[in-house]
Amino acid sequence: MAKNLLGIKYMDKQQIQWIINKALEYKNNTSSYRNTLSSKTIIMLFFENSTRTRTSFEIAAKKMGADVINIDYEKSSLKKGETDFDTIKNLSAMHPNAFVVRHFDSGYPVFLSQFTDIPIINAGDGTGEHPSQALLDAVTMYEVKGRLEGLRVSIIGDIVNSRVAKSHMEMARIFGWHLSFYGPKTMLPSQEWLKGITIERNLHDALSNKDFVILLRIQLERKSGQNLPSLGEYARFFGVKELPKDTYLMHPGPVNRNVELASGLMDRYEKSLILKQVENGVYTRMAIFSYTIEG
Amino acid sequence: MAKNLLGIKYMDKQQIQWIINKALEYKNNTSSYRNTLSSKTIIMLFFENSTRTRTSFEIAAKKMGADVINIDYEKSSLKKGETDFDTIKNLSAMHPNAFVVRHFDSGYPVFLSQFTDIPIINAGDGTGEHPSQALLDAVTMYEVKGRLEGLRVSIIGDIVNSRVAKSHMEMARIFGWHLSFYGPKTMLPSQEWLKGITIERNLHDALSNKDFVILLRIQLERKSGQNLPSLGEYARFFGVKELPKDTYLMHPGPVNRNVELASGLMDRYEKSLILKQVENGVYTRMAIFSYTIEG
Amino acid sequence: MAKNLLGIKYMDKQQIQWIINKALEYKNNTSSYRNTLSSKTIIMLFFENSTRTRTSFEIAAKKMGADVINIDYEKSSLKKGETDFDTIKNLSAMHPNAFVVRHFDSGYPVFLSQFTDIPIINAGDGTGEHPSQALLDAVTMYEVKGRLEGLRVSIIGDIVNSRVAKSHMEMARIFGWHLSFYGPKTMLPSQEWLKGITIERNLHDALSNKDFVILLRIQLERKSGQNLPSLGEYARFFGVKELPKDTYLMHPGPVNRNVELASGLMDRYEKSLILKQVENGVYTRMAIFSYTIEG
Repeated sequence: MAKNLLGIKYMDKQQIQWIINKALEYKNNTSSYRNTLSSKTIIMLFFENSTRTRTSFEIAAKKMGADVINIDYEKSSLKKGETDFDTIKNLSAMHPNAFVVRHFDSGYPVFLSQFTDIPIINAGDGTGEHPSQALLDAVTMYEVKGRLEGLRVSIIGDIVNSRVAKSHMEMARIFGWHLSFYGPKTMLPSQEWLKGITIERNLHDALSNKDFVILLRIQLERKSGQNLPSLGEYARFFGVKELPKDTYLMHPGPVNRNVELASGLMDRYEKSLILKQVENGVYTRMAIFSYTIEG
Repeated sequence: MAKNLLGIKYMDKQQIQWIINKALEYKNNTSSYRNTLSSKTIIMLFFENSTRTRTSFEIAAKKMGADVINIDYEKSSLKKGETDFDTIKNLSAMHPNAFVVRHFDSGYPVFLSQFTDIPIINAGDGTGEHPSQALLDAVTMYEVKGRLEGLRVSIIGDIVNSRVAKSHMEMARIFGWHLSFYGPKTMLPSQEWLKGITIERNLHDALSNKDFVILLRIQLERKSGQNLPSLGEYARFFGVKELPKDTYLMHPGPVNRNVELASGLMDRYEKSLILKQVENGVYTRMAIFSYTIEG
Repeated sequence: MAKNLLGIKYMDKQQIQWIINKALEYKNNTSSYRNTLSSKTIIMLFFENSTRTRTSFEIAAKKMGADVINIDYEKSSLKKGETDFDTIKNLSAMHPNAFVVRHFDSGYPVFLSQFTDIPIINAGDGTGEHPSQALLDAVTMYEVKGRLEGLRVSIIGDIVNSRVAKSHMEMARIFGWHLSFYGPKTMLPSQEWLKGITIERNLHDALSNKDFVILLRIQLERKSGQNLPSLGEYARFFGVKELPKDTYLMHPGPVNRNVELASGLMDRYEKSLILKQVENGVYTRMAIFSYTIEG
């Protein structure tokens, strides 16, 4: 059985901690990963455009010495009427060592994993999960706090459409986080989802007594635009202009300045982890390759 | 003179056997090709989209340690009014070690080869030839039968638009195959092409007493759609639903399930070589690089 | 402070000579550059399509053993409302070793360089500069003449829209060239630019007593088409059909045959350096990587 990385939902505390330790080991000793994947082939199968995530995975793979094949499915002639499970069987017959899959449909990587023995790494599926983002967030939280258990984490924004929030709900379950959500009502999930999660009543509460505040991007290219009167309204009521001291600020990027986050705060806030998240992303994706391919 | 791979038409039995032996040597000993092309540069010059063939060539090249440069001509600014022979002369001045060329015009790779000393590998030209596909088919046939001489081969589908069929007509001549074609009359070539080739009268005959049955894909993105009343009609009269025992089934892919091949048969047929063709494709293309660059 | 390559404007004689010497050293000893950039990552950030320049940089980087990440901004989802300086900060957090930037706005690479410590190499910015082209021209001139000082250089064509001409104006200043321009009046720069530069009165003068004649391409995809009655008129009055003996002919490519240069002259002219420019381009870009990353 292939060792996939399909979602935080399918992982346990030990596996997550293994990836965190590996990422920080790689970060602290850049010679520790050199050529560990030489003569391995990684296929990047992107059914949805994602320059940022693809670049991070690609740098990670190449730094470890792997060969990377980019398949940009939107522009590709791959399908030509072929079923998706035939496509993955065909690509698998070329003996790559892992697939990194981004797809606009939730559950797609899980579906593919039924038809191949080669590890599948979920690089984001619809509104499903974005496990590599949640893991790099966890690496970053662990790096600054020294633990993941019992953290107070607030997520603000378009929760219902966010695969990052979905993955962090699983993190919260696994590590006993005090997780709270805040955002326009149209962007909050329905009640049955929300066992053990606090819905904050106002921005002040959403920012108070938190270890980490994670802002989500208003994703105009997804459906979220429909649920908002305007960006200005969002900025006025949900945009963060200041933060209590000692609260770490996170954002999966790219940031819409002056929408979810005041530009001035972004530039001067000392406890912002936004660029550290990006940096740790490369090491985390290296650790994910080690986990799925070598592990 | 560069050692090109322009078509089966230009090859002899010895050269083809050399490539077959090399491909199987690589398949059986994966350390035999490592770094054999290190410090070589291969330019993939694709004037027509072909994710599948490009991916196979790219994996092959990278497994041998070559640097690969992808030029996707459809999206490129390469031309800007330049003649094609100036383009190939310019790219040749950068001293790559081979060009892999896919073009929608028949004869294009032969044309280019007149203007450069660098090996040109034809990755499919219009309705001309698709020699790397025919060679990977030959590797696969040789692997299961132990010989290529005197095989009984049936090709079913849109023969007249198929560069694969064109390349196999040359294989038939070289190895003395008993080659037969079957398909809608609108998809069969004219009489003068057909010296020594049998046109089967019905599907039953097209499948009987054959070593290999090669199904072609109905290529809706080419002209073949025009020549058909409907896919349903094609499936009914030309789609394969069962095969005589001991007949090997081949298909260059991607398969339109329930058009040229019944889905159930595809999944359960033990003598299907379809995925083995894809697997052998990578080793065959490695052997082609060795033949053109090192040979 | 990062060592950028933003324009010839920012360089001195010694730096240019260093790059020329390095490029010729690499050309004469191909083992001298192998693996000098292994474990380095180079991001190609192309906001404007440029297959030719990108290919040359990519071959150069890979020959030195670097990992190359292509970001094709036109097709990318990179922005999504992010500011450009956030983009470069984010990509910088992934710790690449250089950015190669092509942009349709003049001054863009200089702008980016204010927000990152990672070297930025200008691969052409609007009508600003194209320093790697000017440097490969300088390598080629030095190779055939043995010196750069005091050369007589004529540039013919759409001067005002040409970043190549802009970079060569700086070369002229640095090396004391006798620089002259010729072209339709609508394509010549205004007077205040032209200190020390001769505007030739006719084609005969523009070609006489020159060491090098550099023809520019009529760039129909830019604004230059507007400034011309027709290509035929251009060919008649500004197209070069013959050259005085001992005059070297250069062109940054791609050539519009029978527009700026007669096809027959292009094919038979012994002193044409056009393909040598392309060849030297790869070595020059290697030298640029050495200069910015290692230097």
